[in-house]
Amino acid sequence: MNQIKTLAFDMDEVITDTLSKTITLYNQLFQKNITKQDLVGKRLSDTLTKEQAELLHREVDKEGFFRDLAIKEKDTKAILEELNKKYKVFICTAAMEVPNSLKDKYLWLKEELPFLNDQNYVFCGDKSILATDYLVDDSLYQLEGFKGQGILFTAPHNQLREDHSFVRLNNWNEVAEYFL
Amino acid sequence: MNQIKTLAFDMDEVITDTLSKTITLYNQLFQKNITKQDLVGKRLSDTLTKEQAELLHREVDKEGFFRDLAIKEKDTKAILEELNKKYKVFICTAAMEVPNSLKDKYLWLKEELPFLNDQNYVFCGDKSILATDYLVDDSLYQLEGFKGQGILFTAPHNQLREDHSFVRLNNWNEVAEYFL
Repeated sequence: MNQIKTLAFDMDEVITDTLSKTITLYNQLFQKNITKQDLVGKRLSDTLTKEQAELLHREVDKEGFFRDLAIKEKDTKAILEELNKKYKVFICTAAMEVPNSLKDKYLWLKEELPFLNDQNYVFCGDKSILATDYLVDDSLYQLEGFKGQGILFTAPHNQLREDHSFVRLNNWNEVAEYFL
Repeated sequence: MNQIKTLAFDMDEVITDTLSKTITLYNQLFQKNITKQDLVGKRLSDTLTKEQAELLHREVDKEGFFRDLAIKEKDTKAILEELNKKYKVFICTAAMEVPNSLKDKYLWLKEELPFLNDQNYVFCGDKSILATDYLVDDSLYQLEGFKGQGILFTAPHNQLREDHSFVRLNNWNEVAEYFL
């Protein structure tokens, strides 16, 4: 019998819609009115001065910011619950740039995805350390260092990238089709 | 040229002397006077009822407990700093049973081992997910799931175990001899 495959999922922009909350904060802080469509092909920080980027980062790293994020899509939870029956699912989130997110992310996962084993949470920085079979992530940087099969999950910042090293999945229905 | 090897070090009982602080707390809570020598071959929890173990766990999971731990040995920092020049050093600590330790561990590492890259911190549960070449850990359970070369670091609870699957190192001078 084959060994159960291991799947690692990134959190921000894959499981949670962190960008919407960040855009709302950005618009408040800088009196702007941008939307996700304005961010195709770029990062929020690309539109800011160094001082503005630091201010935004300080606000995002405040306790509570990551505690009440919206789920990415309405089917995300149900699909993760199905995947968790067939695979060993790990949640692997880069959290070291926002250390105040650590406990918020832990509590969010416990509350929103209670069917997952908390021993399978991984709060890290450099994901090249992961030994899972798959990694679903919106960051090309993280996928490039990963040793297993990288899956690029579409987000505005990576939307224009044509990178054929990775399978691209655009939404959770495509995740379900690919893995289930 | 060979690729730089990756070393993962556990925190509690390998880099930090968590047990001494836990024993002090234990003796206060339960009016005992035990020492590390009394714990050869066992875990603290083996000496407690379920209710007592839960009380101890709640106290250990309070914010601040992991913030001021003593370093394991006087040479630990200097040896880690040398290792970090020759290897890519990761700190991989199981923190999900004590979620209030997350930020304390982050701040401890930043302050005590500032030469390490914080992108190489990994706060996890199940270490079978790690893709490093080596893992130095006092937990046989974690080493058994690990895919690289496991190194058993001696602690009272594992002292009597004769397990020849792993290299055993008894202290940081032996770590230096093995890796440097």
